Amino acid sequence: MSASPTAQQALIPVLAVVGVGLIGGSFAAALRQAGQVGRVLGVGRNPDSLAQAKHLGLIDDIVSPEIAAAQADLIMLATPVGSLGPMLARMRDHLRATTVITDGGSTKAEVVDAARAALGDHIGAFVPGHPIAGAERTGPDAADASLYAGRKVILTPLAENAADAVALVRAAWEVCGAMVLEMTPEAHDSVLASVSHLPHFLSAVYMAQVCEADDAAMRLALAGSGFRDFTRIAAGSPEMWRDIFLSNRSAMLAELTALRAVLDRTEAALLAADGAGLQQWLQDAALARRAWRKESS
Amino acid sequence: MSASPTAQQALIPVLAVVGVGLIGGSFAAALRQAGQVGRVLGVGRNPDSLAQAKHLGLIDDIVSPEIAAAQADLIMLATPVGSLGPMLARMRDHLRATTVITDGGSTKAEVVDAARAALGDHIGAFVPGHPIAGAERTGPDAADASLYAGRKVILTPLAENAADAVALVRAAWEVCGAMVLEMTPEAHDSVLASVSHLPHFLSAVYMAQVCEADDAAMRLALAGSGFRDFTRIAAGSPEMWRDIFLSNRSAMLAELTALRAVLDRTEAALLAADGAGLQQWLQDAALARRAWRKESS
Repeated sequence: MSASPTAQQALIPVLAVVGVGLIGGSFAAALRQAGQVGRVLGVGRNPDSLAQAKHLGLIDDIVSPEIAAAQADLIMLATPVGSLGPMLARMRDHLRATTVITDGGSTKAEVVDAARAALGDHIGAFVPGHPIAGAERTGPDAADASLYAGRKVILTPLAENAADAVALVRAAWEVCGAMVLEMTPEAHDSVLASVSHLPHFLSAVYMAQVCEADDAAMRLALAGSGFRDFTRIAAGSPEMWRDIFLSNRSAMLAELTALRAVLDRTEAALLAADGAGLQQWLQDAALARRAWRKESS
Repeated sequence: MSASPTAQQALIPVLAVVGVGLIGGSFAAALRQAGQVGRVLGVGRNPDSLAQAKHLGLIDDIVSPEIAAAQADLIMLATPVGSLGPMLARMRDHLRATTVITDGGSTKAEVVDAARAALGDHIGAFVPGHPIAGAERTGPDAADASLYAGRKVILTPLAENAADAVALVRAAWEVCGAMVLEMTPEAHDSVLASVSHLPHFLSAVYMAQVCEADDAAMRLALAGSGFRDFTRIAAGSPEMWRDIFLSNRSAMLAELTALRAVLDRTEAALLAADGAGLQQWLQDAALARRAWRKESS
């Protein structure tokens, strides 16, 4: 890390973070630790969280969305995807020409639609993003300047974005230690539906099925380490996942259709006691999983 | 642990273990550590594994199935379920009237059928069992005297079993530190299909579906910690899981039918953008998973 620049020399003289929990708080903490923010404004609906974030030094001041829009060079929206449209609508008439806005939402196509509706002619200010990072913990307490180190961040730039705006968001994430990729909102949503949202859906389907059985208590009593890992994600926030599924509905439905095709095929192999067919499928799956390496957990 | 009794005072003067890997080797190690075996005979098809098990002190002598049948007080069959019938057929005419046989197979109904066919009138000697324990590692090297401490072991006694035979197998597992439950072979297979075999099936179905996508490489590159946990079990031995699925086919098909009913319902809720329905399902699943506590991993 370089020595702290002054506020004027920093990459982001004034940063505003809407939602000062794990995602937004960690973004602010990483930029501050690198000396690349001057002042940090906190915006949010929960006064306790904002007060805690200020106490922890994640933000310098608590402001309204309108003040944040008028003063910030970069605005990070780190609230549930459903709240993004109304927030942008409040900010719209207060934005300066040079303000850049980004977000950390788990889906992108619907977010872009909401941003277009809310920002109108100002849509060029919004550079959509999604850090592939998270943790069991939530809230300002969970904020961690190293959360994004080595993680991937996907940006889904819009045709209306100026090159400078995309470059600023990319630079901010790189300061946080992240690796930045760019793709279309649709490609993002399809990939995330596959590797993040569908596992959660299936884990919760499975968990519900176990619990509906007459002997559910005996089943749960005899469940072991395979069950533990397979169902860990099913314990996640029902509200958050409901919103993600709804927000990414068409990509999810496409993935479910593709999954059913494999399920049909493998169930047919089991019904037919087709040992060779089962073996081929299981071997392909095992080799693919063993070849997959998570560079950071 | 009590001081080592002599071979004559031990619970099991002569133990034979068929398959000296994680399951069989750990059983022998735990009984030896507790001083409850006199001599341990090792049986198997792999000379290297047997030599290693002897070198490690898990077994005292390497013998044929026939010698093991003639000399052992208790025989533990810890080989793949498909090999159990032929092994018992070789032992049958050499068994003494007091010999007790048990196993560690992951399915029970088919194993009982195979044992009945192989043992005929001697079926009373066979007390089927299944320790709910396992680990990533395999082979004699992985054997661990503490593997079964605090774990559950299911016995599925047969009408032909003498009470003394069931009591001996129960006592042996309790010496290993396990908690012993009894149920029917059919109940065992149904419960294990649900909490062990179905998660593996679904994890491998999902993994295969991800790998069939045109953008599989991009998907795998962006997969995170949810994917990691959800697919961990898909890396398991293809041969072992093929045999488990085939051996437990009817229970697996019943579980898959029940799972499809939940999948149909939840997919319909998603298609209809039924937020309340999705929320109820996700909340029930999350609460059930959070309430589940694995007392030992």
